[in-house]
Amino acid sequence: MRVAVVQFSPRFGEVDANLRRTEELIQGLDAEVVVLPELFQTGYLFTRREELPRLAEPLDGPTRDLVTSWARDLDAAIVYGFAEATPQGCFNSAALVGPEGLLSHYRKIHLFDREKLWFEPGTMGFSVIEFRGVRMGIMVCFDWRFPEAARSLAFLGADLIVHPSNLVLPWCPDAMITRALENNVFIATSDRWGVEAKDGVELRFIGRSQVVSPRGERLATLGEAEDGVIVVDIDPALARDKQVTEHNHLYGDRSPALYVGTPLEH
Amino acid sequence: MRVAVVQFSPRFGEVDANLRRTEELIQGLDAEVVVLPELFQTGYLFTRREELPRLAEPLDGPTRDLVTSWARDLDAAIVYGFAEATPQGCFNSAALVGPEGLLSHYRKIHLFDREKLWFEPGTMGFSVIEFRGVRMGIMVCFDWRFPEAARSLAFLGADLIVHPSNLVLPWCPDAMITRALENNVFIATSDRWGVEAKDGVELRFIGRSQVVSPRGERLATLGEAEDGVIVVDIDPALARDKQVTEHNHLYGDRSPALYVGTPLEH
Repeated sequence: MRVAVVQFSPRFGEVDANLRRTEELIQGLDAEVVVLPELFQTGYLFTRREELPRLAEPLDGPTRDLVTSWARDLDAAIVYGFAEATPQGCFNSAALVGPEGLLSHYRKIHLFDREKLWFEPGTMGFSVIEFRGVRMGIMVCFDWRFPEAARSLAFLGADLIVHPSNLVLPWCPDAMITRALENNVFIATSDRWGVEAKDGVELRFIGRSQVVSPRGERLATLGEAEDGVIVVDIDPALARDKQVTEHNHLYGDRSPALYVGTPLEH
Repeated sequence: MRVAVVQFSPRFGEVDANLRRTEELIQGLDAEVVVLPELFQTGYLFTRREELPRLAEPLDGPTRDLVTSWARDLDAAIVYGFAEATPQGCFNSAALVGPEGLLSHYRKIHLFDREKLWFEPGTMGFSVIEFRGVRMGIMVCFDWRFPEAARSLAFLGADLIVHPSNLVLPWCPDAMITRALENNVFIATSDRWGVEAKDGVELRFIGRSQVVSPRGERLATLGEAEDGVIVVDIDPALARDKQVTEHNHLYGDRSPALYVGTPLEH
């Protein structure tokens, strides 16, 4: 399966421009899965409460219709991050759509820093779906920091974790190698680059979108400040074989009875 | 608290020489905690069943007496890896001793590759003890690959994970940065370097002993092929404050009800 990861620099609130730039970048892509960044069509830096209701849309809103039309054109599945409006508030969500429509939906569980001022944390949990023989699960950006996120997706059977992101901390690209190794999965991180600044807040995004293999290899990567697309061919069989040495099986070697699952003090 | 990490190249079966070399390296050290490698006095490469009973010793054997005398001389705690003989078989163990004697004992849970031919996997689990105001827990080498190991120690309250190792895979030094960040703890990895070869098996150890901080910094590191000691001053308060951004608390942000704790297929 060919996996494409898209990186660009969305401009806050300029939905039409962000959608047009994405459309240019994915034009004619030869891939079965395309990963777009977190909040790809709105930009990231919400700073006032009134902005989110104006820019968020329901799961079945116009962005999904448009991305589904792209999925039909490319004959591919596309995962994208978006601000989701619901009667329970707004979520930092991602949707995975194929040519026939919605395949999977995720609401970010581990919100980063000031996202908590605007978004509700996801309560739906993780899920894995199969598309053209590859089992995929979604996590979003800061979920990387919590080993339980990638672990949950792997335990649900994911061969490939698709990871729309807007990274500001420098550690994630290396941490995704650890996540790939500890779970023996592929991880495709689509990040953005550029600076967003308004209302006295400035954030610099780190780019460095990448695809890593279950063997801890960085199969392809983009720079810190460039628009671009990388396409990598992955073999899901490599992710399904959890035998990582002659005598080590990543699941069989676990000793759950000996693990401590809850902080003693908190 | 000053933490020292020792790196050298033990020779298989040459217990006296390995102990003498360690003694030279730690002579006069100004540190409250000293971390020695896994299997530091026997070497690593067991290749025949009869070797282990000959080289293993009980927890309260002569090595512990000797290391305890070093701990008294240095007025420090010392953690070291050793082959432990018990009526239930041999374990790849580590002990932490202070000037007054034994403080903590760990039997490696996640055995690496051919270790399974000679050692039993540990069944005692993880533990954390306090020494001079710093809470410490032990994990050994390949435990790094399983996020539950460092997570368990952090959840038990560890400020500092001491990590005797004999690393052959290249990823561990970077993975320990992820482990430090995801748990907000210090990690002191004492590795060995050099090659062991016998009975048609050859292993090259990667050195690169290090201390990493809860903020993901590599505070000090040794080379791929050198004897040496690094000493780093750590502040346990940094590990206890799990508030990693203004709005993110590493424990408070967890959503255990949404995590999947067991592989669906295995």
